[in-house]
Amino acid sequence: MAEFKTVRGMRDLLPEEARLLRHVEGRAREVAKLYGYREIVTPVVESYELLSAKAGEEVKSRMFLFKDIGGRDVALRPEFTASVARLVATTLRNDPRPFRLFSTGTIYRYDEPQRGRYREFWQTNYELMGSSRPEADAETLLLTNSLMQAAGLKKFAFKVGHIGVLRGILTQEKLVDKVQSTVMQLMDKKQYEDAFRLVESAGVSETCMPTLRKLIDLKGSNVLDVVDRGAELVTDYEKSVEAVKNLSEILGLVLKSGVDVDITVDAGFARGLEYYTGMILEVYVPDLDIALGGGGRYDRLIELFGGDPTPAVGVAHGVDRIMLALQEQKTLQKALRETEEERTVLVVPINEELRGEALRVSQMLRNAGVSAELEVMGRRITKALEDADRRKMSYAVIIGERELKEKRVIVRNLGKRVQSTVKIEDVVEAVKS
Amino acid sequence: MAEFKTVRGMRDLLPEEARLLRHVEGRAREVAKLYGYREIVTPVVESYELLSAKAGEEVKSRMFLFKDIGGRDVALRPEFTASVARLVATTLRNDPRPFRLFSTGTIYRYDEPQRGRYREFWQTNYELMGSSRPEADAETLLLTNSLMQAAGLKKFAFKVGHIGVLRGILTQEKLVDKVQSTVMQLMDKKQYEDAFRLVESAGVSETCMPTLRKLIDLKGSNVLDVVDRGAELVTDYEKSVEAVKNLSEILGLVLKSGVDVDITVDAGFARGLEYYTGMILEVYVPDLDIALGGGGRYDRLIELFGGDPTPAVGVAHGVDRIMLALQEQKTLQKALRETEEERTVLVVPINEELRGEALRVSQMLRNAGVSAELEVMGRRITKALEDADRRKMSYAVIIGERELKEKRVIVRNLGKRVQSTVKIEDVVEAVKS
Repeated sequence: MAEFKTVRGMRDLLPEEARLLRHVEGRAREVAKLYGYREIVTPVVESYELLSAKAGEEVKSRMFLFKDIGGRDVALRPEFTASVARLVATTLRNDPRPFRLFSTGTIYRYDEPQRGRYREFWQTNYELMGSSRPEADAETLLLTNSLMQAAGLKKFAFKVGHIGVLRGILTQEKLVDKVQSTVMQLMDKKQYEDAFRLVESAGVSETCMPTLRKLIDLKGSNVLDVVDRGAELVTDYEKSVEAVKNLSEILGLVLKSGVDVDITVDAGFARGLEYYTGMILEVYVPDLDIALGGGGRYDRLIELFGGDPTPAVGVAHGVDRIMLALQEQKTLQKALRETEEERTVLVVPINEELRGEALRVSQMLRNAGVSAELEVMGRRITKALEDADRRKMSYAVIIGERELKEKRVIVRNLGKRVQSTVKIEDVVEAVKS
Repeated sequence: MAEFKTVRGMRDLLPEEARLLRHVEGRAREVAKLYGYREIVTPVVESYELLSAKAGEEVKSRMFLFKDIGGRDVALRPEFTASVARLVATTLRNDPRPFRLFSTGTIYRYDEPQRGRYREFWQTNYELMGSSRPEADAETLLLTNSLMQAAGLKKFAFKVGHIGVLRGILTQEKLVDKVQSTVMQLMDKKQYEDAFRLVESAGVSETCMPTLRKLIDLKGSNVLDVVDRGAELVTDYEKSVEAVKNLSEILGLVLKSGVDVDITVDAGFARGLEYYTGMILEVYVPDLDIALGGGGRYDRLIELFGGDPTPAVGVAHGVDRIMLALQEQKTLQKALRETEEERTVLVVPINEELRGEALRVSQMLRNAGVSAELEVMGRRITKALEDADRRKMSYAVIIGERELKEKRVIVRNLGKRVQSTVKIEDVVEAVKS
């Protein structure tokens, strides 16, 4: 019969990759704890209305959309923020601010499958809701920095911008919201000329196009200097001036935190999701040209979802991409492999009558925290030991008839290829030494 | 605007429940390690053809089925076993046996939502593939016992049966496979009279109906005695005799393992999934009338999926149901709550100019493994401290202008309501004492 396959864009993680996934997830959970973010779990399946409310055309077109058994339009979540905002707008509505909420799990988008890009992927997500202050934005960047370090990445850098700078210009130039969103999406895809044509066709002021053109060229890692130059460019646009000042405060706080972070400010930087209103950020590693994480401020989303006005800032990280970046640093994989392989014990009865005894010894070992596998293939001792050797197990405990009469078993050190008989009550100690 | 809600059958886990979920998942991962099961991660979205191949009509009718963007019939997994079997039939095909594979994640079925039953739920899943021996079946039961204990459950009991006993009778009575499956499903739902009518209408031998009626009444916790009585009942049915012998061996091994397990053997016990071929088991707690876990032997599934013939046995556990059972034991929840609340520190700058310094002190604390939250609401000190008190945080570190000039900060013990000024470099020590 035909071979079954994974669905296009889906994949399996074999044990080594699964371990790496759980490693990153575990570090993310630790970082959440260090920064005071409490974990919540929201459903993979949400109403399409919720997920599409402020997602942007591109994300909407890539959603796993279907009707559920009750005829409702539902979709597999393409990100976490809408779900967290829903929760804060409803169940948590009357709880005191701020909320610091952490999520991790699978995300779904119909992207063209390629290296590091699947249709099901893993994210860690941090939302700080209730604060409009620049220290909240700074925290998002600092915790991303902590996560990248905790996961084991050595080199990574941030790109930071502010939606309010471009939005301030477009709003003052009286572009309607929908056109503004299209402009931002074109900029996100670096289709600047298309974006400019669209702005120009709206009949903007004389200063507008030169200002925009200079802005998108404005970038650099001497961040406060770049911000100052940005301020000079946008003096004619009041809201843009405020946005630059806000970005300047955020970056000033990051610098004062004493954490050594590699940041490039990029005034032409935009992001695909429509709901951002303030600072936006992405984090990269030099060798991969895809972002490992990104986020920003979205002050109007919770209100849009029927909640009280709640300023918010959040960031999500692509676990698969962090894994990809880590896999290029072979030291980490090696370390993980060694952790897994320490002290695993194969328990082998020499004949079928001794299987019960073998089970009993296995349980003794497990009760003492030792990883013990029972030989369940009915293989001869030599075969079973060969297999344990190949799998780099540490010890074999052999249950033999003669030894058992004296309440003893054989403990074989597979690395050193030596063995001795020990009393059953001493077997735990023998495999731990 | 209308309030957004979770989709019918879906739910959010708030921090306390999420922590309980991760607790159970973490214990399940430890048990996997102790028994030598390696974790794999398979997709939530699989081809409908795979998931429906041997799932049984009831599970099929409850699947989240839809067409993906390429027009493929796909579904959200209603269980893990089909995915694991696919992996073993394909990617792992040439790897040496046995496989011990662990999975955890979300599962989807259109059930009527009720207490402890959602349309998205969590399972832990263990598969042992490659061994047809009774010690493999016994291991499945023992690891379930270990998981229930590790999760914190005090009272639970197993129900064990063997598909081969009933199947042996129905096969010898020449019932076709499809009818057999329907009979088993009726029995799973305890609709015994409907099942009997169906068997009778197939024109079975004179001994058949009395044997079946006696069998379904045969149950008890003196397991070897029940098995012996079962053996006497089915002497006319060769395959059933073999099945009883197999079950007797499995239970004998469990008894010999020295683990104290509460088992009831139930000869009329069946399970909804069609692929089982041997021993089946479920685990219960006294207060809930739903199973916390279940599984069994399925020796033909991997072959059906195009792999080499591979005997296999597996078990899955409902994490939500384990959580429900745990929530009735308030001691555990209390313990978890206390863990969360130990040593969390609020860092408060007394004015905006000191926010950078507050960020710097927060980072110092986090670098030392202390959970530190920055005050991001711009509240006055008294307000911020009140809130920290309410949230049962341990310490506040207050960054004041005067103290800062002497490179000091104020450390306030919120429980004891005492405070002192300490040197910045000693702040970690001060909140750990």
